[in-house]
Amino acid sequence: MNKYWSRRLDGIVPYVPGEQPKNEKLIKLNTNENPYPPSPKVREAVEKVRPLQYRLYPDPESSGLISAISEDHGVKPEQVFVGNGSDEVLAFAFLAFFDPGREIVFGDITYSFYPVYAEFFGLDYREIPLKEDFTFDVDAFCGGNHGVVIANPNAPTSIDMGLGNVEKIVSANPDAVVIVDEAYVDFGGESAVGLLDKYPNLLVVRTFSKSRSLAGLRVGYAMGSPELIAGLNAVKNCINSYTLDRVALAAAEAAMRDTVYFDETTAAIISTRDRVIREMRDLGFTVMDSSANFIFARHPDISGSGLYGELRKRGILVRHFSKPRIDDWLRITVGTDLEMDTLIEIIKEII
Amino acid sequence: MNKYWSRRLDGIVPYVPGEQPKNEKLIKLNTNENPYPPSPKVREAVEKVRPLQYRLYPDPESSGLISAISEDHGVKPEQVFVGNGSDEVLAFAFLAFFDPGREIVFGDITYSFYPVYAEFFGLDYREIPLKEDFTFDVDAFCGGNHGVVIANPNAPTSIDMGLGNVEKIVSANPDAVVIVDEAYVDFGGESAVGLLDKYPNLLVVRTFSKSRSLAGLRVGYAMGSPELIAGLNAVKNCINSYTLDRVALAAAEAAMRDTVYFDETTAAIISTRDRVIREMRDLGFTVMDSSANFIFARHPDISGSGLYGELRKRGILVRHFSKPRIDDWLRITVGTDLEMDTLIEIIKEII
Repeated sequence: MNKYWSRRLDGIVPYVPGEQPKNEKLIKLNTNENPYPPSPKVREAVEKVRPLQYRLYPDPESSGLISAISEDHGVKPEQVFVGNGSDEVLAFAFLAFFDPGREIVFGDITYSFYPVYAEFFGLDYREIPLKEDFTFDVDAFCGGNHGVVIANPNAPTSIDMGLGNVEKIVSANPDAVVIVDEAYVDFGGESAVGLLDKYPNLLVVRTFSKSRSLAGLRVGYAMGSPELIAGLNAVKNCINSYTLDRVALAAAEAAMRDTVYFDETTAAIISTRDRVIREMRDLGFTVMDSSANFIFARHPDISGSGLYGELRKRGILVRHFSKPRIDDWLRITVGTDLEMDTLIEIIKEII
Repeated sequence: MNKYWSRRLDGIVPYVPGEQPKNEKLIKLNTNENPYPPSPKVREAVEKVRPLQYRLYPDPESSGLISAISEDHGVKPEQVFVGNGSDEVLAFAFLAFFDPGREIVFGDITYSFYPVYAEFFGLDYREIPLKEDFTFDVDAFCGGNHGVVIANPNAPTSIDMGLGNVEKIVSANPDAVVIVDEAYVDFGGESAVGLLDKYPNLLVVRTFSKSRSLAGLRVGYAMGSPELIAGLNAVKNCINSYTLDRVALAAAEAAMRDTVYFDETTAAIISTRDRVIREMRDLGFTVMDSSANFIFARHPDISGSGLYGELRKRGILVRHFSKPRIDDWLRITVGTDLEMDTLIEIIKEII
C-alpha cells in the first residue's frame, strides 16, 4: 500500500491469470484456449481492415458485431452489449447492477475473478458452498439476495447445472440481477439465452476467447433485457467510449457469422474431451462430467500440485489451484488429439 | 433509472464522444484524428501477427510495447502502464488514486470526460475556472487538493501552460497525485516526462490515437513513479487481465519505434496548423495559439453553432460544444493541406 493509492486498493488481491509462458516450447493446456485457429473468415475480415483506417476511431456502437450476435442468438440488437473480453463485461456488470451494502452471492468454487470484482468495488458478498460432489446447492441461491453470479458450466469444475436449475434461480430472485457466465456453454452446456424474454433480471455473459478461438483479440459480450444492456452501456460510456478496436470488431463479427466452422471445431473438441475423459478414468482418475473445453480431474495416488509439477517438467502446462477443496484437482484444457495423446502417454509414465 | 441499476448510475450523464458518421462522405475534422496513416512499420508488424495466434491470450504484461515506450521516453519499464486507450488509462487512474470525500480539482474548460469519471466513481470535485483568456489560473491549483487533473496542452482550448507551470502545480501538491493528460503534447507542447524522477506524485498520460495515428486500435499509456504504476496495474488486474489485444500491441510497438515517421508527420501537421491559423486570423477569426493538432477559433459575425451547421451542410464536420463560455467557439482538427484548403474556401463562402 502506497500513500498515493486509493483506499479501495487497501489489502486488495488482484486476479492472477494462468501463466502465459513466453519462450518455452510447452503443450499449453492451462488457460482453456481453443486448440484450433479461428475461422478462415476471420483472416479475410481482418485483411479488409486496411492500416490506413487505423487512424480513425472505431464504431463506438459496434453495430456490425452486435448485428451478428443478435442474429446468431435470435435476440434484438438492443439486448446485446459487447466489451473488451468477458472479464471487462463482468466488471462492468458488477458496476452496473450491484451496490455496496446489498449482499450478492456466488459459489465457493467458481471463477475466481468474482470475489476480486466484489472486493475491489466494495461489495458485500457471500460464497455459497457447492455440495460435496461440486454441484450447486440450487436452493441456497433462491431468494434473499441482491445479486447472483453463477458460471454455467461452472469453472473449474466443468459441470453444467442444467437449464431447469438456472431458471429456478433466476425466477426466485426477481428483484436481483442474476448473471449467468456462459464462457464455456458452447461445449455442451444448456444456455439460458432462451429465458431472456421471460426474465428482465437475467444477464447472460459470453466470450469469444473459447469456442471462437479469439482469446488474443479480447472480445466478450452480454445479452439481457434492453434495460440491463442500457445500464452496461452507461457504465462503458463513463469509462471508455471505444472499448473494441477495428480489428477485434471485424474478427469477432466474422467468427460469429461462420457457424459451420464453429460447429465443426466445437464438435471436435467435445469428441476429444469425451475420449480423453474415458482414458483418464481407465487410468484411475476421478473425472467430473464435463460440459466445457476442459477436464477437471484428480488421481488417488498423486497430489494435484505433484502431478502439475511432474507434467510441467515434461513440457505440459496445466492449471492447479492452491485452494481449499480443490487442491487435489487439476484443470486440463482440451487440446488437439495429438496433444492429448501426448498428455495420456506422459501421465502413464508418471503414475 | 431502472430498478436493477446500481445507485452509482442514478442521474449519471455519460461522456458523449464526437460523432463518427458511418455512411456520409465528409471531411472529418471533429475528433482530432491524425490525417496521415500510421507508420508503414505498423502494417508490417500487424501482418506478422498470424491469425493462428489469435487463439492464444496476449501477453498480459505487454512487455514488448512497454519496452518500446520506456526506450523512447528514457524511463524504466516499471514506470510505464499501458491500456485500452487513454480514456481507460484515465479511468483506472481515477480509481487508483482518488477517493470519495477527498476533493479533486480540474479546470472548468477541459476534457469533458474528467467530470464524468468523477461523478461515476462518486468523487467530490471542484472545477477551477480558467482565466478570461482561457489560460489556467495556476495558483488556484497549488495546494489543498487531494488530486489534480490537468490536460496540457488543454482541450478544447489548444493552449499549453508551459513546463514551469506544470512543475509549480506538481510541486505544490506533494501529497496528491497530479495527472497531466498529454494527449496532444507531441504537436508542440512541453512534456512533463522529464519531471518524473523528481516527483513521485506525477502521472503523465499519453495516447496513440493522435500523434501515432492509431485511434482505431485503442492504445494509451501512462508514465509515473513505480509506485503509481503498480497502483494502476492493481486496478487493471481487478478488472481485466488482458486489456490490449495481440494486434494492438504489435501495432503500437511498431508505431512507437518509428521515430522518423513520427517526426515527419507531426511536423507536417504543425506546419499545416500554423498556416491555417494565419489564414483564419486574416479572415477575422480569433484563434488561440495552438500546441495541439486542432484549432480553437471563433468569428465575430457568426455563432459557433451557426458556423458548425453551415460547415456540416457543406460536407465538413467540426466539433462544437454547447457549454458556457465556449459556446461561440469551434474546435477544428488539423487535416491534410488539401482538406484545410477546402475548409478555408468554404469558410470564405459562408462568412
